[in-house]
Amino acid sequence: MSIAGQVIRCKAVVAWEAGKPLSVEEIEVAPPQKNEVRVKIHFTSLCHTDVYFWEAKGQNPLFPRILGHEAGGVVESVGEGVIDVQPGDHVLPIFTGECKECPHCLSEASNMCDLLRINTERGGMLHDGHTRFSKDGKPIYHFLGTSTFSEYTVVHVGQVAKINPEAPLDKVCVLSCEMSTGFGATVNVAKPKKGGSVAVFGLGAVGLAAAEGARVCEASRIIGIDLNPNRFEEAKKFGCTEFVNPKDHNKHVQEVIAEMTGGGVDCSIKCTGSTQAMVSAFECVHDGWGVAVLVGVPSRDDSFKTHPIHFLNERTLRGTFFGNYKPRSDIPGVVEKYMKKELELDKFITHSVPLLDINKAFEYMLRGKGLRCMIRMDA
Amino acid sequence: MSIAGQVIRCKAVVAWEAGKPLSVEEIEVAPPQKNEVRVKIHFTSLCHTDVYFWEAKGQNPLFPRILGHEAGGVVESVGEGVIDVQPGDHVLPIFTGECKECPHCLSEASNMCDLLRINTERGGMLHDGHTRFSKDGKPIYHFLGTSTFSEYTVVHVGQVAKINPEAPLDKVCVLSCEMSTGFGATVNVAKPKKGGSVAVFGLGAVGLAAAEGARVCEASRIIGIDLNPNRFEEAKKFGCTEFVNPKDHNKHVQEVIAEMTGGGVDCSIKCTGSTQAMVSAFECVHDGWGVAVLVGVPSRDDSFKTHPIHFLNERTLRGTFFGNYKPRSDIPGVVEKYMKKELELDKFITHSVPLLDINKAFEYMLRGKGLRCMIRMDA
Ligand SMILES: NC(=O)c1ccc[n+]([C@@H]2O[C@H](COP(=O)([O-])OP(=O)(O)OC[C@H]3O[C@@H](n4cnc5c(N)ncnc54)[C@H](O)[C@@H]3O)[C@@H](O)[C@H]2O)c1
Ligand SMILES: NC(=O)c1ccc[n+]([C@@H]2O[C@H](COP(=O)([O-])OP(=O)(O)OC[C@H]3O[C@@H](n4cnc5c(N)ncnc54)[C@H](O)[C@@H]3O)[C@@H](O)[C@H]2O)c1
Ligand SMILES: [Zn+2]
Ligand SMILES: [Zn+2]
Ligand SMILES: [Zn+2]
Ligand SMILES: [Zn+2]
Repeated sequence: MSIAGQVIRCKAVVAWEAGKPLSVEEIEVAPPQKNEVRVKIHFTSLCHTDVYFWEAKGQNPLFPRILGHEAGGVVESVGEGVIDVQPGDHVLPIFTGECKECPHCLSEASNMCDLLRINTERGGMLHDGHTRFSKDGKPIYHFLGTSTFSEYTVVHVGQVAKINPEAPLDKVCVLSCEMSTGFGATVNVAKPKKGGSVAVFGLGAVGLAAAEGARVCEASRIIGIDLNPNRFEEAKKFGCTEFVNPKDHNKHVQEVIAEMTGGGVDCSIKCTGSTQAMVSAFECVHDGWGVAVLVGVPSRDDSFKTHPIHFLNERTLRGTFFGNYKPRSDIPGVVEKYMKKELELDKFITHSVPLLDINKAFEYMLRGKGLRCMIRMDA
Repeated sequence: MSIAGQVIRCKAVVAWEAGKPLSVEEIEVAPPQKNEVRVKIHFTSLCHTDVYFWEAKGQNPLFPRILGHEAGGVVESVGEGVIDVQPGDHVLPIFTGECKECPHCLSEASNMCDLLRINTERGGMLHDGHTRFSKDGKPIYHFLGTSTFSEYTVVHVGQVAKINPEAPLDKVCVLSCEMSTGFGATVNVAKPKKGGSVAVFGLGAVGLAAAEGARVCEASRIIGIDLNPNRFEEAKKFGCTEFVNPKDHNKHVQEVIAEMTGGGVDCSIKCTGSTQAMVSAFECVHDGWGVAVLVGVPSRDDSFKTHPIHFLNERTLRGTFFGNYKPRSDIPGVVEKYMKKELELDKFITHSVPLLDINKAFEYMLRGKGLRCMIRMDA
C-alpha cells in the first residue's frame, strides 16, 4: 500500500532545547512538495556539527529541531517536478546541494551551489519556507535541509545523491559528510603524487579521511599532527607513517616538519578549526610546489596571518568545502570506489546503537570515543 | 681573429657608489671558467631592480658593481663543460637560472632552482667566488649573475636562454625579466579562461605584462587597479577594459570589484609591493573558483592578514617568481610566441639611448616616464 501523498506518522529524535537530552517522539511528516523527495532513512551517523547545533552556543538557537545529516536511505515518494530519482532509489541526503544550473554548478571548479549551499540558519524548506515536520500540529524545524534523525525526512532533490543500490547503507552513509570532506580535500584539491609527502593537521574523522586519501594516492610519507597523543595509535590504521605532537617541541611545528622532510612536505591538509594550525599547515609546505589545503572551519573572529614571502616562494593555499565534490554528480562515483575496494570506510565506524539509544551516540562523541557511531533506524 | 681564452678590454657602466651617477669605463673581462659563458651584449634595458640596487637603500651595499639584468646578446666563447650553447648563439642572460638537476628543476611546478635561483648578495661567480670583471686590476662585482651593462659579460650557462637567432634582440631583450614575470603570472599561474574576468593590481611594467597575458588568454574583462591615475591611459593599449582607482571610493576596492562583477573576478594578479593591495587582490576573487596570484615583492616587515573564511569558500592564493617560467626550458618558446605575433613586446619599449647616455635611462625610470628604455651597446 502506497503512502505517497499522505502524511506519515513515524519516530524521530526531536531536539527540544539547546543541550537538553534528546527524546524519540512520534511525529508527522508531510508529503514532499515541488522538487522535494521523501526518504525513508535506514542508517544515520552522528557528526560534530549535529552536536554543535544541539549545544547551540554562539548561534541563533532554532528549536524544536530534527538534527542529523549523515545518512543513507531509500526514496519513498517524490514531489512535483522531480525526475532524477524515483521511489525505491537508494540515496544519500547531503547537507550541501547541487542545483545543476547556477554558475557554481556549471563551473568545474566549484561545488558551492548558489541555491543549495549549506545553510545552517534555515529551518524550513526552500519551496515555501515551511517545515514538513510537526508534532501534534506544532511545527518542528529542519536542519541543513537533511534532518536525518527521523524515520522519514523530506529533502530538496538537489540534496540527494542517487547511489548504487547494492552499496551497504550502513557503511556508505559516512560519505555524506566528513569522510567525503577529508578524502576529497586530499584527492581533489591537494592531489599528492605517488611517492609524495603529506602532512595532516588534526586527526579527527576529517583528518583521518584526509589520511585515507593520501594512502589511496600512494603518498610515501603521511605525517599526522595532533595535540592529543591518544590520536596517534588509531591514526596508524589510516595510513599515517609518522606523528608530530606540537607540544613535544619548543620550536614551531612547521620548522620540525621542514627538518623531517628536507624543506617541507609536498602538501598539507588542515583538518582542525585552529588558526595556529592553519599558519603551520601553510608554512610547512615546500617552496616551489607545496600546496596547503584548508578544511577546518575557523571561528568568527579568527584571522590568518603570514609573511607574504611564503606565498611568493611559490606556495599555494586553497580552501575547500565538502572535499570539492559536487554531491549529485560526484558522490555516486565515490560509492563505486568503495564497492571496488579502492577506498576503505568500515574502519571509520567504531560504534553502533539503535535509534532509542541516540543519547549514547552523543556521549561517545562528547567523550571523544571512536570516530563514527552508526544509528540503526529500524531497531 | 678569436679572442676566446683572452682577457677582453671593453666598455662597461660601473656603479662606484650607492646613488652616484654612473660612468662608462674601460674594463677587463676575464675568459669564462667552468660552466660559464662569455656573452657580447647587444641591447640591455633598465629595470627597477637595477635602480633599487644602485640606490642600495636597506641593503648590504656591494660596490663597485656592474648592474643590468635585462639583455640580449651573442655568445663570444664558452668555458669548460659547456655543451648547451656555443659561440655565435643568440642568448638572453637571465637573473634566475636552471641547473636542470635539482629537485626544483626536476619538478614540473617549480622554477626556483636550488643552485641558481636569484641571489642579490652574491658579487662573484659560483665556480670560484671571484669576479670576472676588473678595472686596472681592481675587481668589480657582478650583479644577479648577469651584469649586462657591459659590452661583454660572463654568465653561468644555467643563466642563459638560447633563442631563435632571427629574433630582434632589441625587442626580445625585455623577456629576460619583468615582461616574462607579469605575462607568465597570468598565462602560467592565474590561467584565466577565454571570456573570463581578470583584475590587475599595479599598472607598472609587470602589471601591464600581466594584462597582456590576459589579452592573449582572451579574457573579456581586464580591470586595472592603480593609485596613480596617469597609468590608466597607457593601460588601454595593454588591453585593460576598465579601471579602478582605490582613492576614488570610500569602500574597500575588493567590494567595488565584487559589485562590478557580480561577486568577484575569476582571477587577480598583484603586481605591486603593497600588502594592502595583496589583501584586496585576494579578497576580490570570486568564491568557488577564484585564483589570486602574488607577484609584487613585499618588504621585510610586511604581513598578510585575512579571515580564513575567504580561503574556505574555495579561493586560491599562490605566489609566483619569474612567471613560473624555467629560463632555459621555457623562454625560447616565449620568444617564438613573439615571432608568431601571438604576444606583443614593442609597446613596452618607450625609449632608447646609447650606452653613453645610460644616466638618462635612470632619469626616465626615476621620473616614471614610459616603461622600458632600451640601451644600445654599440652606439
Ligand atoms: N570544509 C568542510 O567542508 C568541512 C566539513 C566538515 C567538517 N569540517 C571541519 O573540519 C574540522 C575537523 O573536523 P573533525 O570532525 O575531524 O574534528 P575533531 O574535533 O574530531 O578533530 C580535530 C582534531 O584536531 C586536533 N587539534 C586541535 N588543535 C590542533 C592544533 N593546533 N594542531 C594539531 N591538531 C589540533 C584535535 O586534538 C582533534 O583531534 C572541523 O573544524 C570541522 O568544522 C569542515
Ligand atoms: N615575483 C617576481 O618574480 C618579480 C619580478 C620582477 C618584479 N617583481 C615585482 O613586481 C612589482 C611591480 O614591478 P613594476 O616594475 O611593475 O613596479 P612599478 O613601481 O613600475 O609599478 C607598480 C605600480 O603599482 C601601483 N601601486 C602602488 N600601490 C598600489 C596599491 N595599493 N594598489 C594599486 N596599485 C598600487 C603604483 O602606482 C605603480 O603604478 C614590484 O613589487 C617588483 O618588485 C616581481
Ligand atoms: Zn547550483
Ligand atoms: Zn557532518
Ligand atoms: Zn636547479
Ligand atoms: Zn628586472
